Amino acid sequence: MTDLDFIFSRRSIRRFTDEKVSENHVKLLLEAAMAAPTAMNMRPWHFVVIDDPGKLADLHRILPFGKMQTPLAISVCGNLGSAKKLVTERFWVQDCSAATENLLLAANALGLGAVWCGVHPINRLESAISSSLNLPSHVIPLNVVFIGHPAEKKPPRTQYDPAKISHNLFEVRWESSVDQD
Amino acid sequence: MTDLDFIFSRRSIRRFTDEKVSENHVKLLLEAAMAAPTAMNMRPWHFVVIDDPGKLADLHRILPFGKMQTPLAISVCGNLGSAKKLVTERFWVQDCSAATENLLLAANALGLGAVWCGVHPINRLESAISSSLNLPSHVIPLNVVFIGHPAEKKPPRTQYDPAKISHNLFEVRWESSVDQD
Repeated sequence: MTDLDFIFSRRSIRRFTDEKVSENHVKLLLEAAMAAPTAMNMRPWHFVVIDDPGKLADLHRILPFGKMQTPLAISVCGNLGSAKKLVTERFWVQDCSAATENLLLAANALGLGAVWCGVHPINRLESAISSSLNLPSHVIPLNVVFIGHPAEKKPPRTQYDPAKISHNLFEVRWESSVDQD
Repeated sequence: MTDLDFIFSRRSIRRFTDEKVSENHVKLLLEAAMAAPTAMNMRPWHFVVIDDPGKLADLHRILPFGKMQTPLAISVCGNLGSAKKLVTERFWVQDCSAATENLLLAANALGLGAVWCGVHPINRLESAISSSLNLPSHVIPLNVVFIGHPAEKKPPRTQYDPAKISHNLFEVRWESSVDQD
């Protein structure tokens, strides 16, 4: 056993109770998200906390795989209005994805459930979400994370696959070239 | 205090001891990375474990911000050779970034230090790394993560900024619209 259960126990949760997510928990989720590393520490992100029933209904209507009934959603967006535009434009997707993974792991650690629904780079989803949340053109929705109290349980897991690991050169498999116990 | 210290205590570490990273730890890092969520569960990733001194020297030569002296690096790559090419091409950067954040958090939890050095989408870095690691054209290096035993300590932190949070509509600030304790 290791101390990495905080990672292995995070699963995509798609069934939820009606219980609301406390404001304290929302703040912790956002603190965790903003603790992620970013290229040149530019932090090119913006978060939209969505708990208005009409806005949640908009998300359900817009997102083909985002019909989850939750009291809360957070849209993680890229903010391209920063000073170092060249860095931000190149790396905002990576930076905001790392922040999203932090948010998902934090939700799991707090006993909440969450699921990441992709938006960018699908133009019609970006436009519809931007319109619902009134985003300016320099703020691009990367995803919508639906969050609530879980009504399903899934076992921890890795998806470790030795075929996806090379050692120094692509054609050398890692597990065949080192001693594993 | 909360249980989220596994997130707040992760910092970018750039000074390292000479101590090697055990193979058991390398495997745990890869298990953690592959536990990340991916679009349609496509897992469009490939990992190159780099511990050959000549290859590490290549990385130092190629990467303008990647001069860290470590016994180990892992390059997280996108594998675009999958069946559902349309999904993978759209989402591999997000998927592999989430996997990278898992890897960084796992390193921290194991007492290791790590730093993420960006490669994609900078073409000249992609080409040089691909050449050194002999990557086929459908495998694209997203980054190089340098990993070792830390020779510096940094305090936990969030970079929480209420100016980066909206509430249902972009122009409504979250903290001004809810009660915070």
